[in-house]
Amino acid sequence: MEPRPAAPRPRLCDSLGADQTPSASTPNAARAELGRRAPAVAAVLPAGGSGERMGIPTPKQFCPVLERPLISYTLQALERVCWIKDIVVAVTGENMDAMKGIIQKYQHQRISLVEAGVTRHRSIFNGLKALAEDQPDSKLSKPEVVIIHDAVRPFVEEDVLLKVVTAAKECGAAGAIRPLVSTVISPSADGCLDHSLERARHRASEMPQAFLFDVIYEAYQQCSDYDLEFGTECLHLALKYGHIKAKLVEGSPDLWKVTYKRDLYAAESIIKERISQHICLVMDTKDENHVGHRLEEVLKDELNHVKVTSRLPCHTGRDLDQIMSEQCYSYVCVNVMTSDFEEIRKLVNMLEESNLSILYPVVVISVYFLDYKSVPFDQKMENLMQIREYAKEVKKRNILLCGLLIYYPQDEQKLQESLRQGATIIATLIKERNSGLVGQILVA
Amino acid sequence: MEPRPAAPRPRLCDSLGADQTPSASTPNAARAELGRRAPAVAAVLPAGGSGERMGIPTPKQFCPVLERPLISYTLQALERVCWIKDIVVAVTGENMDAMKGIIQKYQHQRISLVEAGVTRHRSIFNGLKALAEDQPDSKLSKPEVVIIHDAVRPFVEEDVLLKVVTAAKECGAAGAIRPLVSTVISPSADGCLDHSLERARHRASEMPQAFLFDVIYEAYQQCSDYDLEFGTECLHLALKYGHIKAKLVEGSPDLWKVTYKRDLYAAESIIKERISQHICLVMDTKDENHVGHRLEEVLKDELNHVKVTSRLPCHTGRDLDQIMSEQCYSYVCVNVMTSDFEEIRKLVNMLEESNLSILYPVVVISVYFLDYKSVPFDQKMENLMQIREYAKEVKKRNILLCGLLIYYPQDEQKLQESLRQGATIIATLIKERNSGLVGQILVA
Repeated sequence: MEPRPAAPRPRLCDSLGADQTPSASTPNAARAELGRRAPAVAAVLPAGGSGERMGIPTPKQFCPVLERPLISYTLQALERVCWIKDIVVAVTGENMDAMKGIIQKYQHQRISLVEAGVTRHRSIFNGLKALAEDQPDSKLSKPEVVIIHDAVRPFVEEDVLLKVVTAAKECGAAGAIRPLVSTVISPSADGCLDHSLERARHRASEMPQAFLFDVIYEAYQQCSDYDLEFGTECLHLALKYGHIKAKLVEGSPDLWKVTYKRDLYAAESIIKERISQHICLVMDTKDENHVGHRLEEVLKDELNHVKVTSRLPCHTGRDLDQIMSEQCYSYVCVNVMTSDFEEIRKLVNMLEESNLSILYPVVVISVYFLDYKSVPFDQKMENLMQIREYAKEVKKRNILLCGLLIYYPQDEQKLQESLRQGATIIATLIKERNSGLVGQILVA
Repeated sequence: MEPRPAAPRPRLCDSLGADQTPSASTPNAARAELGRRAPAVAAVLPAGGSGERMGIPTPKQFCPVLERPLISYTLQALERVCWIKDIVVAVTGENMDAMKGIIQKYQHQRISLVEAGVTRHRSIFNGLKALAEDQPDSKLSKPEVVIIHDAVRPFVEEDVLLKVVTAAKECGAAGAIRPLVSTVISPSADGCLDHSLERARHRASEMPQAFLFDVIYEAYQQCSDYDLEFGTECLHLALKYGHIKAKLVEGSPDLWKVTYKRDLYAAESIIKERISQHICLVMDTKDENHVGHRLEEVLKDELNHVKVTSRLPCHTGRDLDQIMSEQCYSYVCVNVMTSDFEEIRKLVNMLEESNLSILYPVVVISVYFLDYKSVPFDQKMENLMQIREYAKEVKKRNILLCGLLIYYPQDEQKLQESLRQGATIIATLIKERNSGLVGQILVA
């Protein structure tokens, strides 16, 4: 594990980004209700799987997505929900140290680890045992409601967690469902179609699920070895042993489970898109002709769904702190008719202090507006080339730094063309967020 | 639609790449069998869907993946299988012209278009009607076996097509299946769990499916309006009306259906990965110290699963033609101690003649080994900057051209370091295949 700054990182409840904040459809009444009665809620995350369907040796919950293990995203999704008091993760003995390393490196909180069982049900049971009051030496206390979720469903939102918890408090058990994507059929013993199921009458059972703790814990205590070995469905156990008919809650497509290699690709693209939704331009106070603001306008034009904002330079104060606390992962630092380096160093220092880059790679593009066709190129270029060494250094802290020369001619039409090209390059660097190009000086 | 060169493109059966050629598991006996008896096989592709689950206005089969509509990849997957004689695509009236444009632009062959119905079953029925002998003015003839596939499953391989066709010839009907990813449950009327299905006893019914033409055509002629409106499963119709128990064939994970936006992301990543599996270095004959070959070695070292080969320059002959006919989409053109442009122009001309870039963007990286720290930079740089205009021009033909300066010092250790950095940049440009960076001169 790479050493990390030890400073406490600001942890905001539900503040990752537009997509992950509670949507307009969040049942505010339900939330208020939950707030009033405030049941103690914990979560259990079975993470003992081997990921054999992925066709790769690493279990899928530990596969890197933007260089961070998938399970860390799922933990992040759960821990940003303030009202989940404890998160119990079941991992196999051989992955225990790796898991501890992940918790430390990414500064996860409220996590307890237990040993996974050989099946999913046994892992969940181990997690529940750790939460039950009668365990000696446990810092955990028995919750009223327990959420069961999968380590490989990183995009779970507070919205659906709240819905299943509220429904579980009322009905004893609840689970998220989704429409079926394919028709389900039942094969006969000779490998032929026996019958097909009517798609409209069935649903896929997804996660999260939630239960009154006593209901699910008793069901696990009563259930047979056969259930523990071959079962897959917690709602089924609650029905069979607790006679509880679980409430079914419609989930969003985001709940999908990372199962195949293609799902890792999809997860990476979704995460890249989410952290590229806000670009902050740090302006140059010496920019008399406001070319920085013109770049801002062109970026807004080209990137329809992206929020583009601007701030004064670092030395003027607290404005940038605010942007960083809102978790903006993309910065463009504007320099007009200068090839100096001061502003970018200040910005990078602020980013390092913010600890933003612990969870996601932060892209920083240092833009130089220069009339490089009329001034001698050599000397300025040599100055700018220093960015390469500096970029290598800051890459170790997960900050991806590039330079971008934008041609700044007198001619209005040519300037507009340069701005457009610059915006395209900025959009590409932010979208791809690839460390292979750090330290490059690109030209628009 | 952008105008395209009209020269006929070489069409090889099963030659897209390692991942799409018949795998070792292809049942050769079955293929030989099929060859001997050679049943006439056609395919029907319902493509009338609206894609509402995607949450975007474009129907998903027309969504761009690397700027080409998804359905074009599916057509390509079917038409590279020589023994599929006709491919009938059912599209809605409003998309008919767009579909014709796609067929022309990407030079698809053996395609006939029919009007889609309002449901999937009605679209398939329309496709079957077009294949039935009794249609006047039809160039199509009735096949013995018909494949039904989805427009949004672009990764179907010959392997599974052969299996379902062989099984359909024997049993009358056959379809691909996959294990269930989630447990399937049945809700009660009040939105609670009624019962859950045992996951091991059920399968997801996927595509492709195949039928003796007469079996499925008769089933469609007999079936009720209710079936045509609300049904989803062709195997079910064959069972209900033809009393044919379809043979179920285990498919690979590749058969998955593009349903949600995340699936488009996954498809794009998979396609990018596939077309980046082979990198060809075009060497410089004046490269006395064989630094080009050293770059080749470093690339082989860094890119484990990628085939890296080298060829002599374009002027020496036919070697490169061979590589292009094998559908290599990534080229690195090596120039040693020169900043001239001739070689890259020749390579680009050959690529244009090959028509390779009709289907996929071709990446070309022009590498210049220069001792730029000891020779005057300015003049050479100015020369190199011409690449920007040229790159804009060739981008119109879907060729993505970048320059890469690799520092070529006397010092052995420094050279090794430059080569490694160069390899990282090459790998990034090929993997990302993003047009936003064309014309850039990168520095390693």
